[in-house]
Amino acid sequence: MSEVTFADVVAAKQRIDHLVHKTPVLSSHLLNNWLGHEIYFKAECLQKIGAFKIRGASNFLAKRHEANELPKKVVANSSGNHAQAVALAASSFHIPATIYTTENISSVKAAATAYYGAEVLKFANRTLADRAVQEAAETPETAWIPPFNHADIIAGQGTAALEALQEIPDITGIFAPVGGGGLLSGTLLATRELASNAEVIGCEPFNANDVAKSLRAGSIQSLNGPPKTLADGAATPCCGELTFPIIQQTDGFYEIAEIELVYWTQWLQHLLKLHVEPTSAMAMAGVARWLKTKNTPQKVMVMLSGGNISESSMRQIWEKDYLQTVPSLLD
Amino acid sequence: MSEVTFADVVAAKQRIDHLVHKTPVLSSHLLNNWLGHEIYFKAECLQKIGAFKIRGASNFLAKRHEANELPKKVVANSSGNHAQAVALAASSFHIPATIYTTENISSVKAAATAYYGAEVLKFANRTLADRAVQEAAETPETAWIPPFNHADIIAGQGTAALEALQEIPDITGIFAPVGGGGLLSGTLLATRELASNAEVIGCEPFNANDVAKSLRAGSIQSLNGPPKTLADGAATPCCGELTFPIIQQTDGFYEIAEIELVYWTQWLQHLLKLHVEPTSAMAMAGVARWLKTKNTPQKVMVMLSGGNISESSMRQIWEKDYLQTVPSLLD
Repeated sequence: MSEVTFADVVAAKQRIDHLVHKTPVLSSHLLNNWLGHEIYFKAECLQKIGAFKIRGASNFLAKRHEANELPKKVVANSSGNHAQAVALAASSFHIPATIYTTENISSVKAAATAYYGAEVLKFANRTLADRAVQEAAETPETAWIPPFNHADIIAGQGTAALEALQEIPDITGIFAPVGGGGLLSGTLLATRELASNAEVIGCEPFNANDVAKSLRAGSIQSLNGPPKTLADGAATPCCGELTFPIIQQTDGFYEIAEIELVYWTQWLQHLLKLHVEPTSAMAMAGVARWLKTKNTPQKVMVMLSGGNISESSMRQIWEKDYLQTVPSLLD
Repeated sequence: MSEVTFADVVAAKQRIDHLVHKTPVLSSHLLNNWLGHEIYFKAECLQKIGAFKIRGASNFLAKRHEANELPKKVVANSSGNHAQAVALAASSFHIPATIYTTENISSVKAAATAYYGAEVLKFANRTLADRAVQEAAETPETAWIPPFNHADIIAGQGTAALEALQEIPDITGIFAPVGGGGLLSGTLLATRELASNAEVIGCEPFNANDVAKSLRAGSIQSLNGPPKTLADGAATPCCGELTFPIIQQTDGFYEIAEIELVYWTQWLQHLLKLHVEPTSAMAMAGVARWLKTKNTPQKVMVMLSGGNISESSMRQIWEKDYLQTVPSLLD
């Protein structure tokens, strides 16, 4: 079914080891005590560019470098973490990168992308940016690095779970947020091999539940328009032809309400002292739901995807006080 | 002048090494590039209890344990990080602890203190709590652990700078926030020995500038009432008879406006991906001012004191967007 295998994840790990951080796995005594389970967090928010995305982009280029087939130029369309990932990965291989984005890209993300040496071209809307990157990709010796639907991207993202499961054995459940499905797909490939008894579970915003709908329909479904969710890393309109069949092999899938993901963003920032983005905290909301179905102590790994949060998201996250109600599985 | 020496800090380090985390030293390529200097952050927000305070409290009890003089009970008055520090340190030595605090203690801090095994007694106001702890301290074999004005507390807090300077040599400036002055005093003792050319600089909220006033007057001055500052860790009414003469030996002192410390809280949370408290970010505001006076590249250490932030503080921090204006030394 899948064109990507565990061996690809292992190869990716060797290939990108010197290009990315081995991020720490953290836990909270207080949280474990309250919930009565062991919960571990793979802190990809402390990864270079502040998100796991650098793993996939680095693997994409490192594999071409290995084959002596490095492109002369790379292009990508993104206004988020993928833009920074492509910019930094390209700079590691001394290749010029151009990012096609929209005029409403946040100034801080544009500045970071430019800092990594990429040219940032802004278009009036996403359709125009997508058209421009497509044209640019037709230039000879130019590589268009996709955000998730590519074997080398999936294998690269899988290295985060590979590291986490090598560090913490005997996990019974592993949770990842889902946008296009690159992280969840890579996580599944690593987990089936390293913790074969563990359940692999995806989490998506209820307000951007294209993958949940796709799983129910048995075919890829798309969002009708831009979704209203604070989990902006999971707002992707649909998953890909490569990620979908892998996602179909997962053991569970949760659609998370905005209030749940805000609650867990506050609590994870407070307990872990990390600037965790709502997309990551969403996975912990799935953990809390899942644990309510279990009668025996579980050992869970949560893939904290990143920590890039806009000021307006931070303002919305901290509007109300959810720290008053201590996490519990009793309600 | 001072009753505490570098040897006390070294002894404290050996004594508490197994009781506290060796926290990481982090930096931001982006920030260093924007400012044109090297800036390192000692991340005590990732310390046990989320703040450096566990170092002093642990040293206080570990030293008594070493002398076979452990008290039968410990008491402390605090509604903040010191409460949690005393609770956890006492539990490490299997001693019961009672914390005397006020009814408006945040539920999350009360829950954390109770989790570490301490009894939490709430009083209508601070005067009543202070009176009660004083009475309790007169019980035989009871130790009252003070928050900063004690040689063992100062020596314990100094271990944070000791670790940081052993890891990063040739620092030219080191910055710490100042409440009662325990962290700054310990930092000075470590720095004079390990980086004798470095300037040691304290930072205080302009709205709670009792130490700045004390330095100008040459004697300890107190705040007139509860100060209005988001840097709640630096809202202490006055420093102590032990910390003041050490603070007088520092090379500089900055009084930081609220807008400056909010600006740097946003930026440090964003760049370091850490849940840094405003009291810590205040020290970076001092760094930015200091760097404007320098013509050669500097290598700076910032003591990030902690990461315990209430929901209402988070809401105030993220009310406006300071991420639009990238840090610079040019204004």
